Amino acid sequence: MSVTTARIMRPDDANIVGNVHGGTILKMIEEAGCIIGTRHCNTQPGDRCAAQLARVERTDFLYPMFIGEVAHVSAEITYTSNHSVEVQVQVMSENILTGAMKTTNRATLWYVPFSLKDVNTVTEVPPIKYASLEKLEEGKKRYEAQKMERKEMKERNGEQLMPVTDPEPYTVGFSQSSLIHLVGPSDCTLHGFVRGGVTMKLMDEVAGIVAARHCKTNIVTASVDAINFHRKIMKGCVVTISGRATFTSNKSMEIEVFVDADSLIETEKEKYRAVTAFFTYISLSKEGKPLSIPALKLQGEEEQKRFEEGEARYLQNKAKRQADKQRQQ
Amino acid sequence: MSVTTARIMRPDDANIVGNVHGGTILKMIEEAGCIIGTRHCNTQPGDRCAAQLARVERTDFLYPMFIGEVAHVSAEITYTSNHSVEVQVQVMSENILTGAMKTTNRATLWYVPFSLKDVNTVTEVPPIKYASLEKLEEGKKRYEAQKMERKEMKERNGEQLMPVTDPEPYTVGFSQSSLIHLVGPSDCTLHGFVRGGVTMKLMDEVAGIVAARHCKTNIVTASVDAINFHRKIMKGCVVTISGRATFTSNKSMEIEVFVDADSLIETEKEKYRAVTAFFTYISLSKEGKPLSIPALKLQGEEEQKRFEEGEARYLQNKAKRQADKQRQQ
Amino acid sequence: MSVTTARIMRPDDANIVGNVHGGTILKMIEEAGCIIGTRHCNTQPGDRCAAQLARVERTDFLYPMFIGEVAHVSAEITYTSNHSVEVQVQVMSENILTGAMKTTNRATLWYVPFSLKDVNTVTEVPPIKYASLEKLEEGKKRYEAQKMERKEMKERNGEQLMPVTDPEPYTVGFSQSSLIHLVGPSDCTLHGFVRGGVTMKLMDEVAGIVAARHCKTNIVTASVDAINFHRKIMKGCVVTISGRATFTSNKSMEIEVFVDADSLIETEKEKYRAVTAFFTYISLSKEGKPLSIPALKLQGEEEQKRFEEGEARYLQNKAKRQADKQRQQ
Repeated sequence: MSVTTARIMRPDDANIVGNVHGGTILKMIEEAGCIIGTRHCNTQPGDRCAAQLARVERTDFLYPMFIGEVAHVSAEITYTSNHSVEVQVQVMSENILTGAMKTTNRATLWYVPFSLKDVNTVTEVPPIKYASLEKLEEGKKRYEAQKMERKEMKERNGEQLMPVTDPEPYTVGFSQSSLIHLVGPSDCTLHGFVRGGVTMKLMDEVAGIVAARHCKTNIVTASVDAINFHRKIMKGCVVTISGRATFTSNKSMEIEVFVDADSLIETEKEKYRAVTAFFTYISLSKEGKPLSIPALKLQGEEEQKRFEEGEARYLQNKAKRQADKQRQQ
Repeated sequence: MSVTTARIMRPDDANIVGNVHGGTILKMIEEAGCIIGTRHCNTQPGDRCAAQLARVERTDFLYPMFIGEVAHVSAEITYTSNHSVEVQVQVMSENILTGAMKTTNRATLWYVPFSLKDVNTVTEVPPIKYASLEKLEEGKKRYEAQKMERKEMKERNGEQLMPVTDPEPYTVGFSQSSLIHLVGPSDCTLHGFVRGGVTMKLMDEVAGIVAARHCKTNIVTASVDAINFHRKIMKGCVVTISGRATFTSNKSMEIEVFVDADSLIETEKEKYRAVTAFFTYISLSKEGKPLSIPALKLQGEEEQKRFEEGEARYLQNKAKRQADKQRQQ
Repeated sequence: MSVTTARIMRPDDANIVGNVHGGTILKMIEEAGCIIGTRHCNTQPGDRCAAQLARVERTDFLYPMFIGEVAHVSAEITYTSNHSVEVQVQVMSENILTGAMKTTNRATLWYVPFSLKDVNTVTEVPPIKYASLEKLEEGKKRYEAQKMERKEMKERNGEQLMPVTDPEPYTVGFSQSSLIHLVGPSDCTLHGFVRGGVTMKLMDEVAGIVAARHCKTNIVTASVDAINFHRKIMKGCVVTISGRATFTSNKSMEIEVFVDADSLIETEKEKYRAVTAFFTYISLSKEGKPLSIPALKLQGEEEQKRFEEGEARYLQNKAKRQADKQRQQ
């Protein structure tokens, strides 16, 4: 059971140098996941439901994609628990002029089906068949691991970006940015909730602005840390997306992104934190070579603490990549 | 060699009743054709090229598609001549809640590859392999037939819509409409020409407005007659798309659409007729049943003549459909 | 109480030279105004409501904005009457590579809250607190002034663009243009009315085509006269937007734009004039320097009269600008 989508990359999908935005790719990935997840969860009698994105595992952007290339996105269901579906997605870029094809991304998404009759009810997920017992066991492990991680996830609900007057270059305050978006009909699922892919695209947009302000160069999304979609965002909300630099290594820069939602109409409902995530960017020269990133100037203990946490994530990912490499050899 | 694309239908793809616009579907069809055509024409050494839409054969819309459904578009190359590629496309709608799938469209498109170095040079098309000699012969027949039809195609270059003051309901003047569109970057191919799918979407938009003005009901695209893309439209042009009713039967309505292009900047270049086509619409009740169409009130000999030509096309298509049916039995 | 939005300018936001369309900026301004207006009007018990744009004061475009720059739009409420809200908006462009920031626009918008239960009922506006009595008095003056102007506003309801066969270059008939737009879901507010920003963007599109047809150069929006949104446009309408040149000075060109709406379905409702406005354009060389504008060739008394009225507006604005300058010195 799989689904494949494909689309030509257009100027609006990319930055001025022609690199397709990471957010465009994340949105395509999520759309494929939503199609296959919703399809699967409706393959049994009972309430009709729609799959809602609950979590995206850490995703690396292996190669840049360019305007005029075709993005092929294929998604398949790789594990199901009682109430959730794991979808693995592969993105390939095809240069239709040269025939060159590259795997640019692999992503793992977790969906939860919500009833269309009662949007607060999670429906049962029909089980899939596994090619082998081993596949099932591996899936179970991934399921348990993400469940654990979601529990551990610290609530960062209280934090807000504080505007800084006349900030110094290379400080956190200098590059921090936020944008707001009024949710429109085409941003939503059949339930009237904002689609996860739409949110991720907006997050990448803010993170990209933060990175460009800091680096003043052509920056591209290198990876996105696991994102949990704690709380749904309803149609008619205004979404505020804020980003700030947390960590810089020699060749990369980590940006923390917050998504807050508030209903314009129902004022009694308070603004709430819907999503948080870490995006990592690299800076590229005109020839596409990675450039050095100016070091972040830290001010105060909080920024120092966040920098150290970012560094820990950076080192952990680096170690993981090296372990993966050795395993493959 | 084939390509498949898929996409969820969103509110912006549909009219207020939830029926996906014919133009949305035509645009997806053309994108799939462009991908596979461009890919194929670059499978040999020499100049890189991009496939430009030259002609779409008559296309029927068999079933309506709705918001929330997934449109699957699959395209394959079915014939090649020295300088043109035939692509056959099938569109299926999938209701991911019920699992129902329907073939909603089948279309045949002809592409011509233009060099990216010199946009006036048509490049050679690499031959494809045929499953049987019969397949080759059939393709050749289709190729010759469309070549003939393109030659016979009457030039209607001189005609313009003449505005009517205070028109009577149900006359041609009452419902005729035109729109202009400033070509943007995302409307264009790698050559900087307007993509055929973008043009067809605009044509369907105008035809739909004409049909709605005449019928005052929920109208949907039933079919599109063969469209020839005689002349390319460049980036930086303004496109004027005009539509007028030509014929009404009891349950359908034919609308003639003209596309004219003119460069805003290069004054020496005159406004020219880029495309013409006939769209047929039907009118649907709230339950989705076809309604009667108010008869067109004709004024003058020209309108009478166009009506008769429309009737001839209508009868010819009806006879063809019946012959197809009998052949299938 | 304020709101700030930010967005990167994309290729489709701009013309082929890379200048962001004035209409793109007007649309962002209106979205920020709508968010803060709707939010404010719902800060008290009673019917939920949405703020609908009633009027935009004269707006100048001080500097061009370019693709790749970030537009920052900040809106704050500066006055409230019983049934209307004044929002002042500032737009800044940021070149994120060089860090350069410029104020490109300042705008004043008036909103009226309509109940979501009964879209014909205007709800009460909660009062704001003023920093000083002076601020309140100034706001009251602005409120009275716009009220007066709206009353004085001549109805130009009857006028229509009359097409001209074979028009001579530089005449009014040569460059006049009109487009139609079928209102889609994303064009609308929660009430199902067309958002003011969507209308302004379409108006700028037509005016830009008129200006480009006349000048045959890169033209940019220099200013927009006060716009009154007399009548709401409903979902399911077709909007016809027409523009014609009224006046040319040495370095600028004034274009009058009409917006007419008609329901495709409800026949009893007649086509009506929803909005009219004057847009002023300037013509830029490749180096961004203002070029001379070809003089408008006038034909007939009506065109002569409109030219003189345009000239009066031009001289009045010039005098006002000079007075403002002197006051600042």
